[in-house]
Amino acid sequence: MSGAAPFGDWMKAVQARTEEALDAFLPPADLVPAKLHEAMRYTVLGGGKRVRPLLAFASGELFGADADAVARAACAAEMIHAYSLVHDDMPCMDDDALRRGKPTVHVAYDEATALLVGDALQAQAFEVLAGSTGVAPARLVTMLRLLAEAAGSGGMCGGQAIDLDSVGLSLSLEQLERMHQLKTGAMLRVSVLLGALAGRELDAAELRALAEYARAIGLAFQVVDDVLDATEDSATLGKTAGKDAAANKPTYVSILGLAPSKALAEQLRRQAHEALAPFGEQALRLRELADLIVQRKA
Amino acid sequence: MSGAAPFGDWMKAVQARTEEALDAFLPPADLVPAKLHEAMRYTVLGGGKRVRPLLAFASGELFGADADAVARAACAAEMIHAYSLVHDDMPCMDDDALRRGKPTVHVAYDEATALLVGDALQAQAFEVLAGSTGVAPARLVTMLRLLAEAAGSGGMCGGQAIDLDSVGLSLSLEQLERMHQLKTGAMLRVSVLLGALAGRELDAAELRALAEYARAIGLAFQVVDDVLDATEDSATLGKTAGKDAAANKPTYVSILGLAPSKALAEQLRRQAHEALAPFGEQALRLRELADLIVQRKA
Repeated sequence: MSGAAPFGDWMKAVQARTEEALDAFLPPADLVPAKLHEAMRYTVLGGGKRVRPLLAFASGELFGADADAVARAACAAEMIHAYSLVHDDMPCMDDDALRRGKPTVHVAYDEATALLVGDALQAQAFEVLAGSTGVAPARLVTMLRLLAEAAGSGGMCGGQAIDLDSVGLSLSLEQLERMHQLKTGAMLRVSVLLGALAGRELDAAELRALAEYARAIGLAFQVVDDVLDATEDSATLGKTAGKDAAANKPTYVSILGLAPSKALAEQLRRQAHEALAPFGEQALRLRELADLIVQRKA
Repeated sequence: MSGAAPFGDWMKAVQARTEEALDAFLPPADLVPAKLHEAMRYTVLGGGKRVRPLLAFASGELFGADADAVARAACAAEMIHAYSLVHDDMPCMDDDALRRGKPTVHVAYDEATALLVGDALQAQAFEVLAGSTGVAPARLVTMLRLLAEAAGSGGMCGGQAIDLDSVGLSLSLEQLERMHQLKTGAMLRVSVLLGALAGRELDAAELRALAEYARAIGLAFQVVDDVLDATEDSATLGKTAGKDAAANKPTYVSILGLAPSKALAEQLRRQAHEALAPFGEQALRLRELADLIVQRKA
């Protein structure tokens, strides 16, 4: 794509647009109940790599998405992601005090507020997406259904449940992959799909290609997470490093070792690129995002 | 409505149909992650008065609802309600060990599972509703948006947040009413609306009438809850009685006294009936549900 802006510029522009859209799609901090709304904004705004919105916008560009619909899809996915972090950080789950370099919500507020913030953000995600006007209603219903499936027990929540049950167990590589495909992969995948569907209907071949791309980057994302968790410090990551190993949770590094994990991430990056071949030059941003996910340092 | 079945028979039939539909709309207990799915079914099946499904079905009958769509609307509302109970019962909220006469989810399982069950049930509610096929997509999008609004920070979660913040405060009757209109009223209201919209579009006058009906029964529901909490024992209620007073939470009984609270409930019942006047004889089941809500003993 000759004449395309450098990836870094594109990424910054999309992150800024995401921040602006999230701000607009969250209830104002002075609206009653003000403490809840303030905590929702604390949770969502001003941090995070915005990987899911980046995927939605990149995919949206490829499929000529309606500007409002793709922003809503991006924000809905990010709100689901943000709520999951709030609940994961709670004492009954990972009991983490630091997230994105800030005190976690139950530390900054209290546990009851953290619980409600997560619950309200999930509802807010569906409210935001259901408010799209630039998409044919039948397609929007599909998008809402896909988001619900990705968030629920057959997706993110299911992956969390398997993760909880696997503490102290020795998982096979296949079981670990299955867990991550649900826990992280489902929401990354749906971010790609929602961005595309904000543009137009997809045929079966396009759906397959996007799903294969999403599968590869989803796994790559987790492999790299495990590598970083084993090699970087908490200050760099903005969250507690070495936590999975300390909690005796199986990781790619603990199963495969460090160097093979890095090689796997690189292999997945190539698979992601190959999956995008049918879309040609136009898939530039999705290719660059695969590179970002594998090459990131935090 | 001459020839209509006695209310008790109608109610039992709807409850049975709700139970059957909930069973069908929940993931099977042996599907991975089995513990999560089993706990979701423990939460939702085999208990509860099913007030929200009763309202949805009653309203659906009045507006000639599609059978699948009204069942999905009823189950979606019940799943949101059920998830809210699971999270409310957790130690960081009300810390309750008994619900519907059974151990609460975090007691029967553990806190992390209770958190995930609630999260997954909220997603499941949207997934179930978004799967409706007998409703025009544009109307279904409206239904999904209304459900999200009722569940979120402008509805149920917002009411919870106000409730938390009001412990130990002396609320005015107006503030108490506002809190309950969000905490309980929003989901009762949307149950009525979703049932109706599963039938057809509503005009402004019909929407106003249903909203006024829902306002009255929503408040009546809470007033009666407070009366029962002050007068019945835990075994009768299937949950811990006298809890609000013990927690120094404002209630209708603590603000108005017992006899005026009972009089208010009766007044709200009459208002609910009056709101239904435009619908004539056909609104029989909604009238009977208003009576049930005020006259119930648990």
